[in-house]
Amino acid sequence: MIVVMKAHATDDEVARVISSVRDLGYDPRMIRGVERTVIAVVGDERGKAVKLSNLESLPGVESIMPVLKPYKLASREGHPETSQIRVGEGVVVGGRRLAIMAGPCSVESEAQLMETARSVKAAGANILRGGAFKPRTSPYSFQGLEYEGLALLDRARKETGMPVITEVLNPQDIEAVAEHADILQVGARNAQNFGLLKALGRQRKPVFLKRGMSMTIQEFLMAAEYVMSEGNPNVILCERGIRTFETATRNTLDLGAVVVLKEQTHLPVIVDPSHATGHWQYVAPLAFAGIAAGADGLMIEVHPRPDQAESDGPQSLKPARFAALMEKLRQFAEVAGRTL
Amino acid sequence: MIVVMKAHATDDEVARVISSVRDLGYDPRMIRGVERTVIAVVGDERGKAVKLSNLESLPGVESIMPVLKPYKLASREGHPETSQIRVGEGVVVGGRRLAIMAGPCSVESEAQLMETARSVKAAGANILRGGAFKPRTSPYSFQGLEYEGLALLDRARKETGMPVITEVLNPQDIEAVAEHADILQVGARNAQNFGLLKALGRQRKPVFLKRGMSMTIQEFLMAAEYVMSEGNPNVILCERGIRTFETATRNTLDLGAVVVLKEQTHLPVIVDPSHATGHWQYVAPLAFAGIAAGADGLMIEVHPRPDQAESDGPQSLKPARFAALMEKLRQFAEVAGRTL
Amino acid sequence: MIVVMKAHATDDEVARVISSVRDLGYDPRMIRGVERTVIAVVGDERGKAVKLSNLESLPGVESIMPVLKPYKLASREGHPETSQIRVGEGVVVGGRRLAIMAGPCSVESEAQLMETARSVKAAGANILRGGAFKPRTSPYSFQGLEYEGLALLDRARKETGMPVITEVLNPQDIEAVAEHADILQVGARNAQNFGLLKALGRQRKPVFLKRGMSMTIQEFLMAAEYVMSEGNPNVILCERGIRTFETATRNTLDLGAVVVLKEQTHLPVIVDPSHATGHWQYVAPLAFAGIAAGADGLMIEVHPRPDQAESDGPQSLKPARFAALMEKLRQFAEVAGRTL
Amino acid sequence: MIVVMKAHATDDEVARVISSVRDLGYDPRMIRGVERTVIAVVGDERGKAVKLSNLESLPGVESIMPVLKPYKLASREGHPETSQIRVGEGVVVGGRRLAIMAGPCSVESEAQLMETARSVKAAGANILRGGAFKPRTSPYSFQGLEYEGLALLDRARKETGMPVITEVLNPQDIEAVAEHADILQVGARNAQNFGLLKALGRQRKPVFLKRGMSMTIQEFLMAAEYVMSEGNPNVILCERGIRTFETATRNTLDLGAVVVLKEQTHLPVIVDPSHATGHWQYVAPLAFAGIAAGADGLMIEVHPRPDQAESDGPQSLKPARFAALMEKLRQFAEVAGRTL
Repeated sequence: MIVVMKAHATDDEVARVISSVRDLGYDPRMIRGVERTVIAVVGDERGKAVKLSNLESLPGVESIMPVLKPYKLASREGHPETSQIRVGEGVVVGGRRLAIMAGPCSVESEAQLMETARSVKAAGANILRGGAFKPRTSPYSFQGLEYEGLALLDRARKETGMPVITEVLNPQDIEAVAEHADILQVGARNAQNFGLLKALGRQRKPVFLKRGMSMTIQEFLMAAEYVMSEGNPNVILCERGIRTFETATRNTLDLGAVVVLKEQTHLPVIVDPSHATGHWQYVAPLAFAGIAAGADGLMIEVHPRPDQAESDGPQSLKPARFAALMEKLRQFAEVAGRTL
Repeated sequence: MIVVMKAHATDDEVARVISSVRDLGYDPRMIRGVERTVIAVVGDERGKAVKLSNLESLPGVESIMPVLKPYKLASREGHPETSQIRVGEGVVVGGRRLAIMAGPCSVESEAQLMETARSVKAAGANILRGGAFKPRTSPYSFQGLEYEGLALLDRARKETGMPVITEVLNPQDIEAVAEHADILQVGARNAQNFGLLKALGRQRKPVFLKRGMSMTIQEFLMAAEYVMSEGNPNVILCERGIRTFETATRNTLDLGAVVVLKEQTHLPVIVDPSHATGHWQYVAPLAFAGIAAGADGLMIEVHPRPDQAESDGPQSLKPARFAALMEKLRQFAEVAGRTL
Repeated sequence: MIVVMKAHATDDEVARVISSVRDLGYDPRMIRGVERTVIAVVGDERGKAVKLSNLESLPGVESIMPVLKPYKLASREGHPETSQIRVGEGVVVGGRRLAIMAGPCSVESEAQLMETARSVKAAGANILRGGAFKPRTSPYSFQGLEYEGLALLDRARKETGMPVITEVLNPQDIEAVAEHADILQVGARNAQNFGLLKALGRQRKPVFLKRGMSMTIQEFLMAAEYVMSEGNPNVILCERGIRTFETATRNTLDLGAVVVLKEQTHLPVIVDPSHATGHWQYVAPLAFAGIAAGADGLMIEVHPRPDQAESDGPQSLKPARFAALMEKLRQFAEVAGRTL
Repeated sequence: MIVVMKAHATDDEVARVISSVRDLGYDPRMIRGVERTVIAVVGDERGKAVKLSNLESLPGVESIMPVLKPYKLASREGHPETSQIRVGEGVVVGGRRLAIMAGPCSVESEAQLMETARSVKAAGANILRGGAFKPRTSPYSFQGLEYEGLALLDRARKETGMPVITEVLNPQDIEAVAEHADILQVGARNAQNFGLLKALGRQRKPVFLKRGMSMTIQEFLMAAEYVMSEGNPNVILCERGIRTFETATRNTLDLGAVVVLKEQTHLPVIVDPSHATGHWQYVAPLAFAGIAAGADGLMIEVHPRPDQAESDGPQSLKPARFAALMEKLRQFAEVAGRTL
């Protein structure tokens, strides 16, 4: 950490910062520049990041600049290989084969789920998605089939053999959801629900963590660190678009974040072009772009009758369109050095 | 709701939209314009907002434009007077007298809390804030005194007579926190934690809802609607800055949102200049600005020794600076037609 | 355009809106809904968009919703084929063959420019970029070789046969720049410099329009419309990243915008991954992603010695890295149905 | 400037950075930390900021952190008193008396301008605003009366005695506009039109610089530095709202920026609540808030018949409403230690 003093900071002010740094157990190194004095704080700043940031409130201090990244377990520095996360039986996320998670936004009925599951499997998906507990911006919208939905997902897995991913909203539901799901999803709106993250860290099922709508990449990795620091290393990250001023798409897909994440973390990174765009006709080109950028897989919403969906109809692909997407994706995957 | 057809939509496509609108129980009215046909959907669109939005996935449809606001209970339309929310004994939020919530970010010790409580009361604050359960971006940071912190807040209320506001993070903690607190706070990162919001709607203590970092005003009111639709009308809103590209302040305080909220909802609106700016020296002028813009009160972080705080040191005011702020605030409040 | 009346709007207020709509030469159609009355304004709203938006200031009006897109010449509606724009002799932007614009951020010397030009041509680039007039955020930074830079670009074209693109900053420089350049570039900071846009519309050289840092897609197309409405249909659009809260990349590349633009306009769309990311190691994956998303080409910064560059060193590729990028790009282009 | 090396940087990589720093004429100081080596660069980094930033492209370098602010002339550090800028005869911007700039968005006719000018003067405004050259997002909108508008502004000044502020769009118009106007305005869309800024720096009339829609505070001060570095110290800054995800207001007024600017620069700061909100009913409370936050004045749009305005009707106040605002403002100004 670097402490930058104000231009007119007095010697006494500098001395007080130096002594405060020592009191916190760090080694201060003063450098007198032409216009400013800076004090480098030597030592692992992560343990006492908050205490160090308080130095900003001392007289004569202009600003504080952290040098180290605040996350450790999620960092690629000490873990150069991408993590391969086993999901259900026989599927790996983070390997050469892409993880293709497809299915309806919400589980609505047995018929709807089975029809979708069969079709996405036939098209080449290897993981089935489907929401049983739904976080909706309106309390007046469909809130999911809940436990009945979980039971339907069980049946779909049994029939198709695909592992299942579904969202968990509350810490008290984790145990029940984990009994039925192969991957537990944390939605964008819960990405900094730290109680939920910690509780997910205390069980072993893989956690699929969506980036919050206005989360920086660093905060995203800190959310992963929350899960990991409680003992569960199986975290999968998902870029699903961030909130910006642009309204032509539901969110702004940040593929730059995918590239940065692939550099900075060993955790696998999935792209969700359905939530990113909000309109089905934009899903395929951004799915291709996500794989070209280096993502380890995709999450895509598919519904047999989007005009009757209980949620996210406008962004859901019909099965035939999903199959066409997969066919083209196969070629892009190959160029990217991946398989389907 | 207005359905806008594409320029080259066929008669069949228009007919299909019209029949879908009828199937959903609404009355369609077609208007043929020069370049576009639009279909107005007459009826309360809130009940079936999602189903109506699915019309977008029909062939020939360009876009869907909602006409009604999606919230009802929070709207000022049917409730023209600002809600006056009783807090503890004798304090009202939303009346002529401003609600001034002050205290430390985290409850750290009895001495720290009592010293702060006495000083903010002496300066004119009427509600004591203090965090017992802390949502921290790093799992390695201090996570709060938890239940011990709640007990200390009890003692501070007993001694000072001030009602107490503290944050609740998880649905399973609500009952315990509600026993000790007069107002239950939902933090910005939980502003769309719908499980928490619903659970808070099923108890009666007032709920203090902070705006999420990238929440629109409409989404903010929908979060309030979640609490209210479960039976608890006592919601207090808090503008605490949104996330933008600007980094000189921790967040960007959106006082325009305060003005819009005062127009659109009957719920009281509080401004938090401490979190909005992240630096103590910017707190006072934005506190004054908040009251001048029409807010019903302030939430301000005060700590006797900011350089030793466990959280938010750089944005905490020392007691003497808080007292000076309050003295000046008294004059702005009077011009704004309010009292302290 | 749709005028939405307030819930409690009186009959007189509705009548006044209707008569104002008629005064403006439009045909008003009133629809009385359950909670709101709306008035559809039939006629081409583009001619009098401002006057129509003034209806918002009439008593009883809640809001105004435009139905038509405000641009016409740039729209794909009346022009379904992508425009093919001839550049210099023998190069077309918007056709099956991708436009690859590569070269240094700034023209710094004859040696630097020639070395770069030869290397990018050998790697497969078909257009040479190089800045002679430089818009710099600091007045103390290198401002470009100006006219001397233009002369060097001429020489590079002569030697390599590649057409040349360079930026123009001021209307009074257009004539001189157009003498030397095959494409005139408008930078992100000038994307709404309407005087410059109009002047560029009054000459015939193709205009390369970068999206402004916080420009919506619709505003971007309106900027193109400015050039086109003055008589120059040869506009090429460039997505180069927008400004968001994320700081790990210099800007946030919005490939969703590329997909939306390809749907809504016939103008060719180029992606600039260099400015979008600000770091050379992120350029290649986002170049691939851009082509996978459907872009018509790329703009990429190349410099033989990035650590000595006068501008944008950290985001410039060395020639060998650019060559490697091109080799891989060839495969992605093929899958995307394009050639290099 | 601080150079942060990667965790596994080799000694050779460190040595190369150190020698590059020396080659640039700076004094490198190496600090070996627990996980990282950092190299402090001692010397005034502003002269060679770009060359120093290129160090990022050397092998083993993780990032570069500037220590000094990039602006000098605009900084309060060397100029502790707020600049008092004389405008016309007898008006000062930046003194105890607030600068109240009011008038129509566009000059439309002699009658409209004179009626507005008289009414705002009677209400207490001391500077008349009015656009003659108009930057419009649509080429099909009214573009201003141009030179005829300037002549009308002259007549309004003659009659009312108020100095006049009007916008200049192109460098070639500066001389003509400066003959008629007392303050030359640069609009938000031209805030980084460096050619215009430099040309304005070469004349002496005060320059009113609006913050660009997605400009950081630091970039805003660099734009001021552009004008000042050419010789004109008379720059007035204007916060007019930034672009965010919120759409309930036209822009998001950033009063935190006003507070930061008042700390970091000696230049006067004006708030424009009309453009910030886009709706007349939100203007007054944000005008009060702006003054409470410490602004040196306001810019407010007034039009006698907003429903017939050629631009910005919905955000224009009628004269009587402006007079009511001023009456209340007088009280807020007094508490803020200012006069009208």
